[in-house]
Amino acid sequence: MIVDNGYVHGGDVYRNRVTLDFSANVNPYGTPDPVKAAIRAAADDVARYPDPYCTALREKLAARHGVSERDILCGNGAAELIYAFAQALPVKTALLPVPSFADYESALRAAGIEPTFYPLLREDGFAVTERILDAITADTELVMLCSPNNPTGRSIGRELLLKILARCRETGAWLFSDECFEDLCDVEKAVSLAPELKRNDRVLLLRAFTKTYGMAGVRLGYAISENDALLSRMSTQTQPWNVSTVAQAAGLAALDCTDWAARARALFRQEKAYLIGELRTLSVSTLYGDANFLLLSGVPTLYEALLERGILVRDCQNYRGLQKGDVRIAVRTHPENAALIAAIREVLHA
Amino acid sequence: MIVDNGYVHGGDVYRNRVTLDFSANVNPYGTPDPVKAAIRAAADDVARYPDPYCTALREKLAARHGVSERDILCGNGAAELIYAFAQALPVKTALLPVPSFADYESALRAAGIEPTFYPLLREDGFAVTERILDAITADTELVMLCSPNNPTGRSIGRELLLKILARCRETGAWLFSDECFEDLCDVEKAVSLAPELKRNDRVLLLRAFTKTYGMAGVRLGYAISENDALLSRMSTQTQPWNVSTVAQAAGLAALDCTDWAARARALFRQEKAYLIGELRTLSVSTLYGDANFLLLSGVPTLYEALLERGILVRDCQNYRGLQKGDVRIAVRTHPENAALIAAIREVLHA
Repeated sequence: MIVDNGYVHGGDVYRNRVTLDFSANVNPYGTPDPVKAAIRAAADDVARYPDPYCTALREKLAARHGVSERDILCGNGAAELIYAFAQALPVKTALLPVPSFADYESALRAAGIEPTFYPLLREDGFAVTERILDAITADTELVMLCSPNNPTGRSIGRELLLKILARCRETGAWLFSDECFEDLCDVEKAVSLAPELKRNDRVLLLRAFTKTYGMAGVRLGYAISENDALLSRMSTQTQPWNVSTVAQAAGLAALDCTDWAARARALFRQEKAYLIGELRTLSVSTLYGDANFLLLSGVPTLYEALLERGILVRDCQNYRGLQKGDVRIAVRTHPENAALIAAIREVLHA
Repeated sequence: MIVDNGYVHGGDVYRNRVTLDFSANVNPYGTPDPVKAAIRAAADDVARYPDPYCTALREKLAARHGVSERDILCGNGAAELIYAFAQALPVKTALLPVPSFADYESALRAAGIEPTFYPLLREDGFAVTERILDAITADTELVMLCSPNNPTGRSIGRELLLKILARCRETGAWLFSDECFEDLCDVEKAVSLAPELKRNDRVLLLRAFTKTYGMAGVRLGYAISENDALLSRMSTQTQPWNVSTVAQAAGLAALDCTDWAARARALFRQEKAYLIGELRTLSVSTLYGDANFLLLSGVPTLYEALLERGILVRDCQNYRGLQKGDVRIAVRTHPENAALIAAIREVLHA
């Protein structure tokens, strides 16, 4: 829960009059019916405490990622695990490419870890490039990556990712890699480090159900690592029952919805082409995003003008390295995307 | 989530063959129907993120406790807030009466705070007495109370509670008071410090929906404090969306179930008299509990013998200050309690 008014995330449809929400990067097909059914069924089972071991869920996740059940730690959304990771890790500094998801910095600061910002450059399309290898030195204790990155949508290619991993191993740095958007990434660009974990025990991968399965309101994420001691320390930073009965039931049902992500990816491919084409026609600078969102820039009042029209996008000016006019839009269904384009056209011609 | 096998709580019905669970202190009437209905309805609303401010829920809670909305911080179960409190508080030591709920110590240690244990005495029936006033000195940074206390069931009377509060104010110590069982406590012994908060800004009260409304599987608790800076620091120790959409909806519905706790209290009064009478007949030493559970002692193999019969009680030997044979039983419906008594009789006569 947040107590002050410094809200910095997307999706705050509670304080805005919104008819169309492009600010949260959630699967536009929403929640699969079997997941909804599992939530409804769980209503009869909430008087007892959740399974604190998340036994059934971890079994299924381990099978999916080809790892051992011991390598999985579930959390109350992936966000909780970022905080637990920062608190569990015996480091004082971290290398943080920016712009990126704001909660990395929040979690680091909450744990007393000082971030060193590694600026991704607008002229590189905010891509992580080989330049980062030089920034990882013997003094680097932790590198925090997000691929595809939020809010830029840029993913790191397999070759470079493996080079970064090798560089971290060489220097002794820990590597955190947020793969929460990997399920929704264009297939040819999707890379998970899960197969590399066996040879790298200073690596933690973060994954979520939130975006892929429309479960943002349920809260379920998980970490994967071969480092038992790290996962154990992370678990002592959280209460035993942080993953609700409802979330465990929903997660189990979601993992059976094997075509849910693929169906969304097919939509994104088609709709990204549509959106980028239309935005080009409107001369709005748009960064190609490998996942389910795009970063637009160059129209300073776009956020406010769209909000006046009941459309919420993510104002990105409070991200480190971004500026007024940088906004992130989720890729949604065609009628919604068409409505967004129509609104942007109206704004530009007003 | 827990990764090791050192599980120390009740309610682990997932790893035991259990037909009757007396190990978790949850309302035996379970979850109110309107709460179940709210959970089912929320299934259609989980694709979007939860309200990070818990606006509607805090409004209702503030009205209930006669405090301002700003004084309420919601969490993913009360347990999460214990960890956030320990991490947010600028102290190095804490006075911890024992036996008490194990997560106080876990949360303190996770935050690097060293507990000083204040032993409650078996000969006092584990009651907190005026003796504690001398233990609160100018060196005391934080006092952590639980009333009614888990697992002893003993509550602290209003007069003594106010003396402890005054003593903390005098010495400058912070006071944490866990009131999670206050709703289920015998009415004449139920005391909340909420009316005292205005004059005491180094106090935090902890409350939960878990036990009262059969919502252990949903996860919803809250803290009350006049100390805005403390609540703000606690909120920065957690992610913005720690309270799920499902939990917020369930909590709102629960607060309308105004007779749910009273109905359970009436049952507890009657059933505690029954259980204590029967246990006396069986010569099992039983501590009167002011809430919905009782501490039994003196039968070393009771836990194992009941488990063989499919009945799970809370083995309390891993609580500081307790020993083999100390077991906690929840007070449940009459048929369940009668079955427990029959099983205990069988064990004792075997």
